Amino acid sequence: MDDSNIFAVIIAGGRGTRFWPLSRTARPKHLLGLNGPDPLLRQTVDRVLPLATAQRTLVVTMKSHADEVRAVLNGIPAKNILVEPVGKNTAPAIALAAAHVLDAGPDAIMAVLPSDHIISPPEKFLDDLREGARLAASGNILVTFGIAPARPETGYGYIEVGRKLSGKAFAVNSFKEKPNRKKAKDYIGTGRYLWNSGMFVFRAQTYMNMVKEHLPALYALWETYRNSPRAQDDLERYYAGAEGVSIDYGVMEKCRGSVAVVSAAFQWSDVGSWDAIDEIWKADAAGNRKQEGELVALSSRDNTVVTKKLVALLGVENLIVVETDDAILVCKKDRAQEIKSLVEEMEKRGLTAYL
Amino acid sequence: MDDSNIFAVIIAGGRGTRFWPLSRTARPKHLLGLNGPDPLLRQTVDRVLPLATAQRTLVVTMKSHADEVRAVLNGIPAKNILVEPVGKNTAPAIALAAAHVLDAGPDAIMAVLPSDHIISPPEKFLDDLREGARLAASGNILVTFGIAPARPETGYGYIEVGRKLSGKAFAVNSFKEKPNRKKAKDYIGTGRYLWNSGMFVFRAQTYMNMVKEHLPALYALWETYRNSPRAQDDLERYYAGAEGVSIDYGVMEKCRGSVAVVSAAFQWSDVGSWDAIDEIWKADAAGNRKQEGELVALSSRDNTVVTKKLVALLGVENLIVVETDDAILVCKKDRAQEIKSLVEEMEKRGLTAYL
Repeated sequence: MDDSNIFAVIIAGGRGTRFWPLSRTARPKHLLGLNGPDPLLRQTVDRVLPLATAQRTLVVTMKSHADEVRAVLNGIPAKNILVEPVGKNTAPAIALAAAHVLDAGPDAIMAVLPSDHIISPPEKFLDDLREGARLAASGNILVTFGIAPARPETGYGYIEVGRKLSGKAFAVNSFKEKPNRKKAKDYIGTGRYLWNSGMFVFRAQTYMNMVKEHLPALYALWETYRNSPRAQDDLERYYAGAEGVSIDYGVMEKCRGSVAVVSAAFQWSDVGSWDAIDEIWKADAAGNRKQEGELVALSSRDNTVVTKKLVALLGVENLIVVETDDAILVCKKDRAQEIKSLVEEMEKRGLTAYL
Repeated sequence: MDDSNIFAVIIAGGRGTRFWPLSRTARPKHLLGLNGPDPLLRQTVDRVLPLATAQRTLVVTMKSHADEVRAVLNGIPAKNILVEPVGKNTAPAIALAAAHVLDAGPDAIMAVLPSDHIISPPEKFLDDLREGARLAASGNILVTFGIAPARPETGYGYIEVGRKLSGKAFAVNSFKEKPNRKKAKDYIGTGRYLWNSGMFVFRAQTYMNMVKEHLPALYALWETYRNSPRAQDDLERYYAGAEGVSIDYGVMEKCRGSVAVVSAAFQWSDVGSWDAIDEIWKADAAGNRKQEGELVALSSRDNTVVTKKLVALLGVENLIVVETDDAILVCKKDRAQEIKSLVEEMEKRGLTAYL
């Protein structure tokens, strides 16, 4: 199989709350360089470029981020940046991209990739993607990517793996929503579960066939859009009518029998909140992490600090400290999931300039 | 007794370590406005001004702080700012001031005041100072000021109070060095101990008589200086020869029989370290303190934050957080005394730009 009918469809959304105060409404996680100078979105595009090329890379993003996305994706044709007039979750966004991908022919394949995950090494990622694409090309099948669980994580969905199809590809017995800790441990104990990475590969036509079956109203809107001049008006009409539903709930779960999972050989993190930074930043001997600028720590362990300024720590443990031009966050690591509550509190108090 | 022979002698030294990163080598505590916009030095001068006037206010400071001290003390004659070429502790500094005070005549009285304490209300302070001055004028007596202990503090010296002399003035039985916690509790239990505030009132002549008796070498140098043209050369010769010794060890303790203590009616804090800020800043209902800018706190108690930026706290307790242009401190309150160790560590690592 040659790569020339594989498109990358990168979903660049996000509200910018989980990495506050670094992420903001106008600067969501995919525009941050959490593991280096390049924004995660740019890294995502570059990672898949050997497979998809710039011409076959599509990015779906929000109006409020479009200018910065275009600036970050210097080299990607402007027409490939698809700007949603309003957010309607992933199923309609992926259908929008499918309309454009299908212009290349009925066998065109799309790799649907979140824009804000950290993945390495790129070679293994591309190998797995190609394996998924081969499987997707072979029939009416939706391919997802599963990650061997490293811990009983409660923040991810799980995929129950069925019979082997080929190489690292398996049938999917079931999708499981984010479990509680006990369930997560049970899943891991069986050895038959993978984390759901939220990445997919399929023929655009296959996806739209599934949409036609399970989301017929969306399909009708989409068909109208596809056959229209695809002007701004047409796009707005499509989004105005579209039901906001995710690909997971709207399509994947309803098509279990037609879904395969590739067990990934690459390292993966969705860096879901500040505490996940510890998976990607190196710690010093005391477990403290800081990427740039000086750190002076006495009797202090396992803290993660984000600022260019010198930081002095004295007698503190398991803190996240983040400084930006206008705000400072000091947070216990085990509370990092609650940063969205802080953001809600700021909204309530009208502190919108900080969001 | 009229006030016209009372001089204020304000000792403005300090290495700027205990309130790092706000205080620096070039910006010691007395140049900070910890309880408002005015630096503590300016507050100290203003507080005693009704008694001493600008003409009779002398300030002894260090070369490296002299320019900023002059700027802060706009209105005090330039000749009243005495600049030490080198630090030699308090006994020589007070003798230097005494040389100038004695120019006003043998009955001139000096109130020796640290520049970085917080005192209120000023009226009670001036009343007590006048009571001390009356006592000092009456004979060969050194008057100190004692504070009723609010807690078994181990950071202060204590004064054992003897027989009553007049009003709020008592003889001094003994001076006690900073005690351990048990001793401090014992002192408080007896009801006969006061904190040593480090403030004194005496006739300049009385002080120099005591210096002549107990520090004769210093006295000889001083006499030479006093009778010289008091040019820069003369000042440097005095300081080059002077032994570095404090008024407490070099004079007060050796003259116990000639020392009285006024039991202060005013509120006093020497704000010795960041945790002492809690004595002077108001807390919100959760015990969190921040003077300016927004604070958003969830599940967070008893933190003290110093920055103009918005600060968000999540799941943290008893922290001190201080931000400046180039540094951030995060410190458990009960470790605040160890900030000097942080500063030493920074010196060791050559991070002098931050000191």
